[in-house]
Amino acid sequence: MTSEAELPEVLSSERVYEGRVFDIEHDSIRFPDGVEAMRATVRHPGAVALVVIDDEGRWLLVEQYRHPAGARLLEIPAGTREPGEAPDVTAHRELREETGYDADSLVRIGGAWMAPGFTSEYIDFYLATGLRESPLATGDEEDLSAPIPYTREAIEAAVVAGELDDAKTLVALQLYALRERTAG
Amino acid sequence: MTSEAELPEVLSSERVYEGRVFDIEHDSIRFPDGVEAMRATVRHPGAVALVVIDDEGRWLLVEQYRHPAGARLLEIPAGTREPGEAPDVTAHRELREETGYDADSLVRIGGAWMAPGFTSEYIDFYLATGLRESPLATGDEEDLSAPIPYTREAIEAAVVAGELDDAKTLVALQLYALRERTAG
Repeated sequence: MTSEAELPEVLSSERVYEGRVFDIEHDSIRFPDGVEAMRATVRHPGAVALVVIDDEGRWLLVEQYRHPAGARLLEIPAGTREPGEAPDVTAHRELREETGYDADSLVRIGGAWMAPGFTSEYIDFYLATGLRESPLATGDEEDLSAPIPYTREAIEAAVVAGELDDAKTLVALQLYALRERTAG
Repeated sequence: MTSEAELPEVLSSERVYEGRVFDIEHDSIRFPDGVEAMRATVRHPGAVALVVIDDEGRWLLVEQYRHPAGARLLEIPAGTREPGEAPDVTAHRELREETGYDADSLVRIGGAWMAPGFTSEYIDFYLATGLRESPLATGDEEDLSAPIPYTREAIEAAVVAGELDDAKTLVALQLYALRERTAG
C-alpha cells in the first residue's frame, strides 16, 4: 500500500448483513475535498495461502468445488483466518488440514488485497518446505481433493492453457518468482 | 477451471442483499454424495484489468483510495463491467476513463477468479499498447490519481518492498511474464 495521507473520514458505519464468513457494512465517508459518498464493503477476516513444496520440488495443489465459480478449481491450499487468529497459526492449521503435512519451514513471502474495490479480504502468502506427515481432520472436506503434486512448469502450462484461473495461485507464482530472483 | 463433472446441485437460491455493485445470495446445494450445505455468495458482474504500456515500455499505474483496505493502493487500471457489457467493451471504456488514452491494440492475456471462496468476481486481463489520447470523463474520479508510469523493474521492486499489494496487479505481472515467455 502507498501513502495514507489525505484519506477520507468515516462519518458513520452500519452493518446491514451478517454471515458466517463475511459481513456487509455500509459506510458513509467524506473525502478531503468535502465530497461525501457511501461505500458497501464485504468485511472478511482475511486468509492465508500456501506454496507447499515437496522433497522433489513439486507444488502441492488441491482441487476444490467453488460455488461462486460453479466449478471445481485447481488452487494452492488456502483457508480463512479464525477471528483474531494470527496468520502463521492459520497457515500451519490449513497446511495440515488440506495436505496432511506440517512444515519444518514456514516463511511469509508476501500479501495481497484480493478485491479491494469491495472486500477487505487480505491474504498472507507462505512458503512451506520440509514436509512431514501430520494430518488434521476437520470433517469439512467433502468438496476438497487430496493434494496433487505439480511441477512449476506444469502449473504454468495449466495457466497458459486456461485450466488454472485462481487469482491467489497466480499471485503466489509471482511472489515466489520475485523471491527466487531477489534471493538468487 | 478444471473438470465440471460431479458438481453439486443447487436446490434453492435466495437473494438476501441487493447493492449497487454486488448482491448476496444464499444457495442451498447438495453434493453428489448427498451432503447438503448452504453457500453465501457475493454475486458480482465481473471486471477488467489493464496492462497499459506506453511507447517507452513503461506500465501506467494508478493510485486509488480503496475503502475496504483503508488506504490508497497502487494498481493497474481496472473497472467493473456494466450488466451485460462484453469485457473488451469495458476494457476500452475503463482505459479511456482511467488513463485518458485509447489503445490501437487491446489483447486479452488471461482471466482469474479473484476470491472464489465467496465471490463470483472474475477479472478478464487485457494488454493495451499503441496508446493515443482519447479521454473519457465520468465525474466519478475523486479518489483516483492521474496515471503514473512505472518500469516493470520498479513495479517488481515495489512488490518486494511491500508497497504494492494489490492482487490483480500481481496476477497481471504473472500473466504478462507467461505470455512473454510463451511468445518467445
